[in-house]
Order: sequence, then structure tokens, then C-alpha cells
Amino acid sequence: MISEKMKDLVKNNSVIREMFEEGKKLAEKYGKENVYDFSLGNPSVPAPKKVNDSIKEILDNEDSLKVHGYMSNAGFEDVREKISKSINNRFGTNFSTENIIMTVGAASGINIILKSILNPNDEVITFAPYFMEYKNYVKNYDGKLVEISPNVKNFQPKLDEFESKITEKTKAVIINTPNNPTGVIYSEETIKKISKILEEKQKEYGHEIFIISDEPYRELVYEDVEVPYITKYYNNTFVVYSYSKTLSIPGERIGYVVVPNEMEDSKNIITAITIANRIIGCVNAPSLIQRALIECVDEKVDLSTYNENRNLLYNELKKYGFECIKPQGAFYLFLKSPVENDMEFCNKAKEYNILFVPGSSFACKGYVRIAYCVSTDMIKRALPAFKKLADYYGV
Amino acid sequence: MISEKMKDLVKNNSVIREMFEEGKKLAEKYGKENVYDFSLGNPSVPAPKKVNDSIKEILDNEDSLKVHGYMSNAGFEDVREKISKSINNRFGTNFSTENIIMTVGAASGINIILKSILNPNDEVITFAPYFMEYKNYVKNYDGKLVEISPNVKNFQPKLDEFESKITEKTKAVIINTPNNPTGVIYSEETIKKISKILEEKQKEYGHEIFIISDEPYRELVYEDVEVPYITKYYNNTFVVYSYSKTLSIPGERIGYVVVPNEMEDSKNIITAITIANRIIGCVNAPSLIQRALIECVDEKVDLSTYNENRNLLYNELKKYGFECIKPQGAFYLFLKSPVENDMEFCNKAKEYNILFVPGSSFACKGYVRIAYCVSTDMIKRALPAFKKLADYYGV
Repeated sequence: MISEKMKDLVKNNSVIREMFEEGKKLAEKYGKENVYDFSLGNPSVPAPKKVNDSIKEILDNEDSLKVHGYMSNAGFEDVREKISKSINNRFGTNFSTENIIMTVGAASGINIILKSILNPNDEVITFAPYFMEYKNYVKNYDGKLVEISPNVKNFQPKLDEFESKITEKTKAVIINTPNNPTGVIYSEETIKKISKILEEKQKEYGHEIFIISDEPYRELVYEDVEVPYITKYYNNTFVVYSYSKTLSIPGERIGYVVVPNEMEDSKNIITAITIANRIIGCVNAPSLIQRALIECVDEKVDLSTYNENRNLLYNELKKYGFECIKPQGAFYLFLKSPVENDMEFCNKAKEYNILFVPGSSFACKGYVRIAYCVSTDMIKRALPAFKKLADYYGV
Repeated sequence: MISEKMKDLVKNNSVIREMFEEGKKLAEKYGKENVYDFSLGNPSVPAPKKVNDSIKEILDNEDSLKVHGYMSNAGFEDVREKISKSINNRFGTNFSTENIIMTVGAASGINIILKSILNPNDEVITFAPYFMEYKNYVKNYDGKLVEISPNVKNFQPKLDEFESKITEKTKAVIINTPNNPTGVIYSEETIKKISKILEEKQKEYGHEIFIISDEPYRELVYEDVEVPYITKYYNNTFVVYSYSKTLSIPGERIGYVVVPNEMEDSKNIITAITIANRIIGCVNAPSLIQRALIECVDEKVDLSTYNENRNLLYNELKKYGFECIKPQGAFYLFLKSPVENDMEFCNKAKEYNILFVPGSSFACKGYVRIAYCVSTDMIKRALPAFKKLADYYGV
């Protein structure tokens, strides 16, 4: 009944569902306030006031047929123009309306790019640990995701292994910085090295290899670190952006893809991804929230809570004896499991009512991801449980 | 650079773009008010007041983190419950929350169903004339769309041909009633016959054959005709619904899929299409407009303008000598071309500043689709041009 491609996903889904059900059971048994759920990347800081204000203003002042109507599959032109100018102002780029294609979030953005460039058996490289959905996105178009093993010293990409794994079949590389699940930001030097390797490999194989830069966490940066804008270093770069985290509106499904003019065959690529946006069924990014961006394009959520959470959790967990590097961005902390089997560690944590996700779900065994996009109060309440967990393992 | 699957689409897109550019040129040359564009299915009647009122109320009263946040990939439970109850009230069905999966419009709904059930080379049958995107949707999952030739007498489906074209490979049948582009509604008798044929073929081949009922025009019905609710006639039916036309909000991308419990293996199918919703990149239907449905689930646009347009255009065009059947639903009129080559007819009409779409784009040569979701005033201004066109052809 179910397509071959989907069968395994349906089977494995029940495992995830079981975990979810278990979480609900814990909450019922011990009370919601005594269960510490760090498993989801759902923002805990509300959207800037301007988001709702802009929506209401649009509803009051703009024509309903325009606000809720079809537009070009690439999105409203005034919205795209506004976004291109904002990027240009901040990063010294030179984009205009046609370089921006509005999408149903970053997940759709990656999908329409992959649909436009992948032939069956093409390879897409990414660096572990990585957001597990990449594998599904690549499989959607019969491609193969090639993993570069994690560099657990500092979670910067392993460039030697990267270079050695690029083949005739390599069509694209997905990078994600600030990174989910580690919070690491790639330095300018790293980006330059990746670009240099790719330039050479493009020459060697005589075809383009794209960078797909997945940037939903671009604005979630806590230290004085610059997140390089990748198109400035490498021409064949797609930037995939989402407002989910920047504006705390993940449910609204709004983001965009940037295709620079410097990309080889950029005009046809823009046409292809615009058509892909239509035929995979999105048609266009949701219209009302698109229009709201005109006023909100330079807004971002208040980062102080995330930063407070980051410092509190990092400092306390280190004090208890856990090992982890301090995240510079995103809202995740990637903790070393005191035992090799990270699933076992997750299950043990559950006994103390702490829920987090095993690193194996990000192709990095021996670690767990703690999403600190929660209330600071919950973290404070969870700390004694973390302490007990540390004591149990004698770390 | 561009994937093999997308190459033809990119090439053909420029043809459509040329038509579009030509329309713009006409408007520049003769003034926008002297160009009569009947090519697009973009609603011309604004959303019911309650839509915007509900959105504003939600923004004022509900928690921002909930309104704009992630929810289950299948959608908010309270929204799905409300929809299931509304369907049950109106059609005597017996759905509950889990039978409803919220989607990014009907286009996404069809995509996630096809992704969940199609293996490469599986066949999906549909009746010409049909919405041309079906072909792309089926191709997305390496299936093959099999057309049943049009019955130009009354545009009801040709059931003999249908029965003869069902094979071992047939996985699904897409029906669309009220129909785009003809405005025809399938009678209960027709639905019963289709169901009977499929029941027998399921037995013959020993596997399920699904009906995918694409119903964006369900509420756009002008005469006292019932649009049968397909799950009541055939267990293995997916209903694909969209609020685009019902509420005049096509840009918002909001709809749902119904999977009845009576469907074979329904629980796994529900899981599969929910996962497909996630991994093709939609993740979930946009959250704010989902929540607005709670208050708007039984609203619909004022049909009086569409009905006035329908009567005016039908009566006048008949009077001028054109041939067409009177549409009972949707907002299209399917006119017989006075010459065999419908593209030639479209080009001639353009000389009179009238734009419509050739029937060949719906797999039905010799016809054109006139979208009358425009202002009545534009129709009145266009009538002399239609008269001249009739005179030119001496119909």
C-alpha cells in the first residue's frame, strides 16, 4: 500500500512516536513542571511585537485580494526587493528582486534546490553532525547523502576527509553554520578553504559543485563572531534562509532562497527552482506573512533569554563534570555522553525526567543535543536532575 | 546544471512567460482597462470579513509562541477536530481529528499522497480535460499519468474507456468535481459507477486502487446540484481540500487531506502522508491561518458575483454563436474553439485584447478556458470584443 521509499520512514516513525508518548506519560505521572524537555527546537522567545503589528496593519490597509491572493511563484516582488536590499546593506552583496525566491521555510528551500539540480545517484556531501532531515531531502530526488565524519575536537569540518570524498558524482555540499546540533560557527578561514577545495574540484571534474548554505540560525549568535556570507567566497552558492528562528515564527513556514547572478547558468536555475516551488505543491510562500516581512525584514527576537540559558546551562553542566564545547550560535548545546552509547544516556536521563535527543540522530554517536530554547526557569528546575545524572555516572 | 527531470519544464516555461509578457505588453499599449484577461484562476471576490477578523482576534488573544510555533506535522489538533466535525455535520460522515491532515493547499495535499503511495512506473488515471499540474505531480514520484479522452458532449467521464485503461499498474484515479476547466459536476450516479468499476478492478488485481478527489471548488456551486462526498461511495478515497477558492485565500496555502478509517491500512497511510508533509519540506500547514479556520470553517465567499458573471458570459457568448455547456460550478467556462487549432483561436482573441488559455493545456484540444473570476465590469467591457471575435469567425 505504501510506496517503497516511504516504508522505512513509516516503520521508524513509530520509534520517535514512542519517545514522544513516553514524554507525555512522564508529564502525566510527575506533573508537567517536573519534566524537563530539551528535545525540540521550537523557539521559546515570542516574535517581536512588530510581527503581529505589521500583520494587523496589512489586514486593515491592504486589498484582501492582494494580501491573500496568488502572486508570482517566486513571491511578491516588493517583498523580494526589500529582502535583497537588506542583505546588500548588511553583507555588501549586490542582489536584486530576481535573486530572491520566497519559500515555505528553509526545508522547502532545500527541497526545491535539490529537485532542480540532482539526477539519480548524484552525491551531496555534508559534515556530521548534521540535521537528520538532509538525508530525506536528498533521497526525495534519488540522490545519495555522503557524510564527512565529525571532528569531535571542536566540530569544525574535517577538510581532508571532505576533499577526499568529493567525486565525479558530487553535485552539492550542504553546510549549516551556526550549526544544528553543535552551535558552532564556521570561521572565514574555513569557508575560504572549503571554497578553494571546491574551485579545484570543479575544474578537475569539469562541472559545477554547489554549496547549499542552510542558514536558519544566522541571527542567533551570542558572541562577537562574524558569520561569513557564503556567496562572497564562492559563486555557485545557494543561500537558504528561514525566518523561523530569527522571528520566532516556525509554524508560519516562511523563508527564501538566494541565487546569485555569479552562479553559473543562474537565470535557468532561478527558473528551475521557481517551477520546483510550484510543482512540489508549495505554489508560493504564504502570502500574508510574506507581506508582513516588508516591515520586519530587519527585526529579530530578543536573544537575551537564549544567551542566559546558554551561559547557565554550559557553566553548570561543566561544573557537574560534563564535557561540551560552548556554543557560539543557534540554541543547542552538544554534550558528550559519559557512556559510548548515547541512546543509553538518553534513557538514563529520562529516569531523571530529562529529555534530549541522541547524537546518533545527527550522525554523531556518543553525544546528545540539548535544545535550550526553553524557559530559564525550566533550566533552573532541571539543574538538580542534571547534577544527579552527573553523580550517577561519576563524571 | 539542471536536473534531467526539470529541463523540459524550464524550456517550456519560457513559452508561458512569453504569453505573460505579451499580456503585459498589451496592457501597456492599450491601457489595462482595455485588456480582458480571463487566463487566471485567481479569485476576484474578497475573503469573507470573518477571515481577517479571526486573524486579528487570534493575534490579540492567543499566545504568540503557539500561534506562530511548530505543531504536529499534521496540524493543530483543535483545528482538525473542528474541520472533521464540520464535514460530519454536512455530509453525514464519521471523521475525527486523526482523519484530517492539514496541508499547504491542495497541491501539496496531492503531492504528499502520491509520494506516499506511488512506486516508479505506477499509473494514475485522470479524465481529460484536467488541471495540467497533475502530470507534474505524478512525475515527481516517477509515476505515469494516464489520460481518459474527453467526452465533449457533456464533459462527464467516459466510463468505458476508463474501465479499459485500468491495469495491474493502476494505483490511483484523480477526479476533480466541480471540474477545472469545465465547471461540470459529476452526478451521484457517475460516482457510483466509478466506484463499482474500481471495486471490481481491485478484486481482479488483488490490490487497492485509490480515488484522489481534488475538491478546491466544492463550495463554488451555482445550481441546486449536490456534489457527492466520495468517501461515502468508495472506501479507498483521499479527499483533498483547499480553502483557496472557498475563502478567497489562494496565496495563504491552506487545505487538508482526509483519510477515512475505512481506507485499507489507514493508520499507516496517515503516518506516511504526515511524514511526507514533513520531508518534502512543508513541515506543516502555515500556523496562523490554520488557527483562523477554527472560526471560519463554515464560511464561504459571496458567490453572487461569480454567478452573475457566469450567466452574463454564458448567455452572451451563446447569443454571439459560440458553443459551450453551462458550468454548474467552479469559475470557468469551457468554450468550443470555432477552429480546430485552439492555440490559433487564443492568438486571434489576443488581437481583440482577450486573453484565455488553450484547451490543449488541459489535454482537450479545440477548446479554451475562460476564467470568469474577474470583475463583472470587465466582462461587460469585454463583450463587444467577444462579439467581434464571433463575427470574425462567422460563428
